[in-house]
Amino acid sequence: MLLRRIAVTRPTRAITSGLANPNTPRRLWPHRACASCATTQTPPKPTADHRQLGVQQELFTTSVYSPGSPILLPNGARIFNRLVEFLRKQYIRYGFQEVITPTIYKKALWAKSGHLENYADDMFTVTSTSPSRRDTAENGEEDEYGLKPMNCPGHCLIFASQRRSYRDLPIRYADFSPLHRNEISGALSGLTRVRRFHQDDGHIFCRPSQIEEEIKKTLDFVRIAYKVFKLGPYRLTLSTRPADHYIGTAEDWEGAEGALKRALDASGQDWTVNEGDGAFYGPKIDIILRDSDGKEHQTATIQLDFQLPKRFELEYQAPAPELERRGESTADADKLAESGPVTPVLIHRAVLGSVERLMALLIEHYNGKWPFWLNPRQVVILTVNDSEPVLDMARSARDHLLGVAGSQITDDGPVSNATQISVDIDERKTSLGAKVREAKAKGYGVIVTVGPRQLGKGTVTIEMNGLDQDAGASQSHKEMTPQELLDLLKSKIDSYE
Amino acid sequence: MLLRRIAVTRPTRAITSGLANPNTPRRLWPHRACASCATTQTPPKPTADHRQLGVQQELFTTSVYSPGSPILLPNGARIFNRLVEFLRKQYIRYGFQEVITPTIYKKALWAKSGHLENYADDMFTVTSTSPSRRDTAENGEEDEYGLKPMNCPGHCLIFASQRRSYRDLPIRYADFSPLHRNEISGALSGLTRVRRFHQDDGHIFCRPSQIEEEIKKTLDFVRIAYKVFKLGPYRLTLSTRPADHYIGTAEDWEGAEGALKRALDASGQDWTVNEGDGAFYGPKIDIILRDSDGKEHQTATIQLDFQLPKRFELEYQAPAPELERRGESTADADKLAESGPVTPVLIHRAVLGSVERLMALLIEHYNGKWPFWLNPRQVVILTVNDSEPVLDMARSARDHLLGVAGSQITDDGPVSNATQISVDIDERKTSLGAKVREAKAKGYGVIVTVGPRQLGKGTVTIEMNGLDQDAGASQSHKEMTPQELLDLLKSKIDSYE
Repeated sequence: MLLRRIAVTRPTRAITSGLANPNTPRRLWPHRACASCATTQTPPKPTADHRQLGVQQELFTTSVYSPGSPILLPNGARIFNRLVEFLRKQYIRYGFQEVITPTIYKKALWAKSGHLENYADDMFTVTSTSPSRRDTAENGEEDEYGLKPMNCPGHCLIFASQRRSYRDLPIRYADFSPLHRNEISGALSGLTRVRRFHQDDGHIFCRPSQIEEEIKKTLDFVRIAYKVFKLGPYRLTLSTRPADHYIGTAEDWEGAEGALKRALDASGQDWTVNEGDGAFYGPKIDIILRDSDGKEHQTATIQLDFQLPKRFELEYQAPAPELERRGESTADADKLAESGPVTPVLIHRAVLGSVERLMALLIEHYNGKWPFWLNPRQVVILTVNDSEPVLDMARSARDHLLGVAGSQITDDGPVSNATQISVDIDERKTSLGAKVREAKAKGYGVIVTVGPRQLGKGTVTIEMNGLDQDAGASQSHKEMTPQELLDLLKSKIDSYE
Repeated sequence: MLLRRIAVTRPTRAITSGLANPNTPRRLWPHRACASCATTQTPPKPTADHRQLGVQQELFTTSVYSPGSPILLPNGARIFNRLVEFLRKQYIRYGFQEVITPTIYKKALWAKSGHLENYADDMFTVTSTSPSRRDTAENGEEDEYGLKPMNCPGHCLIFASQRRSYRDLPIRYADFSPLHRNEISGALSGLTRVRRFHQDDGHIFCRPSQIEEEIKKTLDFVRIAYKVFKLGPYRLTLSTRPADHYIGTAEDWEGAEGALKRALDASGQDWTVNEGDGAFYGPKIDIILRDSDGKEHQTATIQLDFQLPKRFELEYQAPAPELERRGESTADADKLAESGPVTPVLIHRAVLGSVERLMALLIEHYNGKWPFWLNPRQVVILTVNDSEPVLDMARSARDHLLGVAGSQITDDGPVSNATQISVDIDERKTSLGAKVREAKAKGYGVIVTVGPRQLGKGTVTIEMNGLDQDAGASQSHKEMTPQELLDLLKSKIDSYE
């Protein structure tokens, strides 16, 4: 159920419940020791604030009509969608299948999952505005809904919707649904203290014997993701069985903790134990990022759950159920005659955690100087004058970079090779010098110039702004064709640079 | 505000409000006259029901815990995501920028937009579960939220969040947020009569002089989209100014209707007029698909709105505001000295309408025989035996088709060239004949066989299931390398086949 995990994944919550982690920095300083920060010519300012940069770069805004629900402007939505796209590509390797699940569930579901008992304060209630449209519960009263704060119950419903065999496992569901948690209004801020957010949420339903392998893969996923973002270093902590209050047998716990420890050892990362600090329903691994000021940020979490599968009466069929439950099934097991139901183990896992919160971290980490693949302002094309040939060439270069070249509005075919590179044109009659200064201030990754000089050669002039910084290359101007530029940019995007 | 549009876009609504359109078929029969249906060897059954096919193909399910909120299973989510991806590619050509907006807004917003007055019955109310977490409104009572049924007010907030110039227009926002409308529970069914759905929603803020061009582009977008899906024919209807109750001047209406008529003429499509049938806040164009039984389905809509920009006090700065308002600004206008505020025209438009409803239509239209690019079960690899070399080759072919070849779990790099082709392996010890039959019954588009015969040659054997049907080619077995197969499949996907 992740009741503890939530608190830790989002340590920004109000200190009104036992789950709170008050140890929350409002700012996520950039990490000076990492490769990305170290190579920037101006060292990142320690005062970087994602809210301020968010305004400057037109990433997001907020409204009094929906406090705590950030509105992602086109630039912010681009980053968000690229993060999701990055995850979707990794999901293919790690075997996650995306599902799309409801936003509201009746209170009976939240009673079943335990949220009503343990988490109701943090939830919103949904009712019918019109008495005539009300659904009625068994007791004759209005059947109310809870606005979902987590995806796990929905994924349990999907698991339960079909008969499952041990051969089907592990089953891994991923979900990018918006989630809502009712923080008190005074605590809301930017992308970190919010009421509405998206997790890169995943739930793995597996056999007890598969825990170790699944944890290994998840730790590998985390390692690769944070390497791509150049975030780190991070440390791993294992929280083990609480002294008194826990469900499942001590044997279950030992088996699971052993599997987690072996996976942690195999990861090659440093890890420590928080003895007795696990949730009552299972042990967990937290990933804690440290920045240059020593401030720590909880992002990814891997939480084992013995309880939720029981509450939802989930089961799969396996031969020799007794051996299966102990994780001791053998290759010969399916030759045994007696088959029976076994409760799967549930692993909750989020690699980024809250996507909005990770965005805040990245905004401050890069201090607004995005790597090209994430930059919401990737390319701007500046025209030297407003003659028809120059404007035509600029627009044609733009269409080429966008991957819509040749597909004019009057064409008959749909666009199929769009690059999703963001390309703007500055056609104003302002001087080129002023346009270049403005483009740099706005953080465009590549500044392309088109003028009479370029027309004859069929090339454009490129200035890399903040890319290829070594050897002062950032100041150099290169000539290339739009196709050569496109190849260069695609290779940057493909290597997550 | 689209109050009428909604009713028409989703004619499945309950007959409890004046907005209802009871003329709703439960089934969307496939269209026999179209190219796709005509070329299938077995004619589509007229009894195709998307709910039945949805179960058979494991596309979606429902839960008593959230009636009217379809749960998209992995296969359904694949189709959904491909539709969204298709739209995103077209958005680049048509200049739409995606935004991500809140799910809940305070009632004050819905009062401002007019929904509270006109649409409250269809909305859900959101409140705090815990008294201690309640926000307080100005009158001291709890500040309640409405769960959004539409995106337009959110997009108006974004427009209003910055100062806008005539040079910035048109601004086009797109949004795939989940939306909720409180249908009575007895009416709910499958993907067509729902409480939760997603629109391919777009809002264009433009100058009066830009209406015609924007409508032309939108009609072009609609034409291209429905051609890709092989849906149609469709007819266009223009609903004009109501006799009595309308806002704006008769001159405004005449100007706008003139622009719509010119755009309709330029579209080359048949269109008719529904005299006086426009909403009180603006004229609109409906796109009505007709199937072979003569049943009509309202899908896309283009609605002009003079009211919402006024209610939200939206404005942009333009020279010669008087001329600008009449759509008569000239190229010289920006040389004039006097600049002033003008209210933009708002165009609501949805090309697919409800994505879920369009999915239902496609499921029945294709009768479960998906074109390759949309097929949730694109490729299955069948192993002839379970020897290591055969299994290795099967898995290597799979990784190649997935675009994750060479990136093993222990590799260091992230996946960057994932194809998003769905590839399954059937490694069971069952006979090849039984596996092929099952693969065909499940609707896999391409059946790949790997056995000892293929090992030496480095090729796999391909059977196109339902593709390339002409000249009986569907029964032929071709040999090709995994790379040749990948190139073939990519070309199918790129041409939306």
